[in-house]
Amino acid sequence: MQSWFNTDRPMLVSGLRGRVIVLAAFQVLCPNSVAGAVPQARRIFETFEPKDVAVIGLHATFEHHEAFSTAMLKAFIQEYRLKFPIALDQPNPSSPIPLTMERYKMRGTPSLVLIDRHGLVRKHAFGGVDDLRIGAEIGALTQESAAAALSSSAA
Amino acid sequence: MQSWFNTDRPMLVSGLRGRVIVLAAFQVLCPNSVAGAVPQARRIFETFEPKDVAVIGLHATFEHHEAFSTAMLKAFIQEYRLKFPIALDQPNPSSPIPLTMERYKMRGTPSLVLIDRHGLVRKHAFGGVDDLRIGAEIGALTQESAAAALSSSAA
Amino acid sequence: MQSWFNTDRPMLVSGLRGRVIVLAAFQVLCPNSVAGAVPQARRIFETFEPKDVAVIGLHATFEHHEAFSTAMLKAFIQEYRLKFPIALDQPNPSSPIPLTMERYKMRGTPSLVLIDRHGLVRKHAFGGVDDLRIGAEIGALTQESAAAALSSSAA
Amino acid sequence: MQSWFNTDRPMLVSGLRGRVIVLAAFQVLCPNSVAGAVPQARRIFETFEPKDVAVIGLHATFEHHEAFSTAMLKAFIQEYRLKFPIALDQPNPSSPIPLTMERYKMRGTPSLVLIDRHGLVRKHAFGGVDDLRIGAEIGALTQESAAAALSSSAA
Repeated sequence: MQSWFNTDRPMLVSGLRGRVIVLAAFQVLCPNSVAGAVPQARRIFETFEPKDVAVIGLHATFEHHEAFSTAMLKAFIQEYRLKFPIALDQPNPSSPIPLTMERYKMRGTPSLVLIDRHGLVRKHAFGGVDDLRIGAEIGALTQESAAAALSSSAA
Repeated sequence: MQSWFNTDRPMLVSGLRGRVIVLAAFQVLCPNSVAGAVPQARRIFETFEPKDVAVIGLHATFEHHEAFSTAMLKAFIQEYRLKFPIALDQPNPSSPIPLTMERYKMRGTPSLVLIDRHGLVRKHAFGGVDDLRIGAEIGALTQESAAAALSSSAA
Repeated sequence: MQSWFNTDRPMLVSGLRGRVIVLAAFQVLCPNSVAGAVPQARRIFETFEPKDVAVIGLHATFEHHEAFSTAMLKAFIQEYRLKFPIALDQPNPSSPIPLTMERYKMRGTPSLVLIDRHGLVRKHAFGGVDDLRIGAEIGALTQESAAAALSSSAA
Repeated sequence: MQSWFNTDRPMLVSGLRGRVIVLAAFQVLCPNSVAGAVPQARRIFETFEPKDVAVIGLHATFEHHEAFSTAMLKAFIQEYRLKFPIALDQPNPSSPIPLTMERYKMRGTPSLVLIDRHGLVRKHAFGGVDDLRIGAEIGALTQESAAAALSSSAA
């Protein structure tokens, strides 16, 4: 079972169908996550409308297992004032790589995955992504889906 | 007559129909233009495909007329390695505000105007605009137009 | 007992007599420590000669006790590539404020204390300190002591 | 004759004997001057006491002569809110390199020269210098001179 923060219930991709999903994987002891990806996820959450874009954080404990605790993640979320839903990825009984991280074939943290309104993965980035480009890609995905809907209703 | 740099001929909005236009007005002695808007315009130029987005700089000499010269703008463009087309706005015989700046009712520099593929002004900002938001808006405009085209061909 | 990292034995102020000491108190879950004070301590460590200036980190666990562990601090030091000696402040049996933090009357993290070559506290700052000013103060302290020595040998 | 701004009369090194002098050479069309050296000179001016440290700007017109005008420098000083004395370097009849720049053998802009209380050049840097290091060097120079004075009065 994943633990979730900032939400009453687990967020499932299937339950978010119709919205663009930004899945931001981070690790609290990873400098590039803390300085780059986490504040960027917060900016994305503050910039787009929730009805169009769902931002979901994923704490990927793929290293420093001995140093990690749920209390630590909880304190981190509080100190960095993160308001979007965040999942603690599920441990993998057969590997140090947790389950969601493995499913999306993430190479480490930070990683960013964009999923379109139909549930398809459209971008998969490892390391830093600049704001202008990620803004453009999310902006395009929000419109693209509307386009598809428009197109199919016109057909 | 406007003077143009980085282009063989004047860029007219009518000639760019079908592309999203980013009009970035700046002034070489304006600190916020130099530190913010000019590098941002360069990033936009480097991020989007020219077939989708046309970036046009506009030097708006609305103050410090006595300090300005075409040679100065030319040296600035060279030193800051700007590659997108830049117009020197036309002086206004009846006002210190040059003509294009007046036509778009710009309040100062930096100013940013977004024009969609149909030639309509869709955004008008004075002062700094953050990368994530402007990326999203440009990204959406590129798709929106494609959507309209798709929709009308489907109809 | 304090735990120490990056050193074979505890660093005592008395044992550093003759050097300027920069005591940088931080907390791994404090955003201003992680983004500001920790990288600044590293820059100070890299800028000054060890024979003149001793940089000592102090992890002040004054909040989030439940989230903290020694393993976490160890992983943090490794990830942020800190090479200067770092002490984990001793818990205080009668207060959530650990002992060294209390002794120096620190108000929170980040805090920075400058101690001169004679062991006297010369600066005590809570929150961010800019590089230029702290550089100037450390630079002056290194010279001031030499001055005193020169003066007394001349007398 | 040099032109001066922000001062009633020319600043001569001889007239500043007893103070540490920070000579910051810049060029208004040089990106590294505008983004780095000019704001740093302003921070130095705001950090140190005028009785200890004199900050002097030097506009070194060693290129883009055709683009430069005194009106341009004047507008730049106003827009960037520079309050310290600034000299426009004197043209050199026999070279594009102006006189003070040549005298101090500066290789371009930005350049920074530190002169001690006795009028001796102690540092000569071309390109960016980080705040911590320059702060330390200026801080040390202010103390060093006091030390010398103390030493000689003690002798």
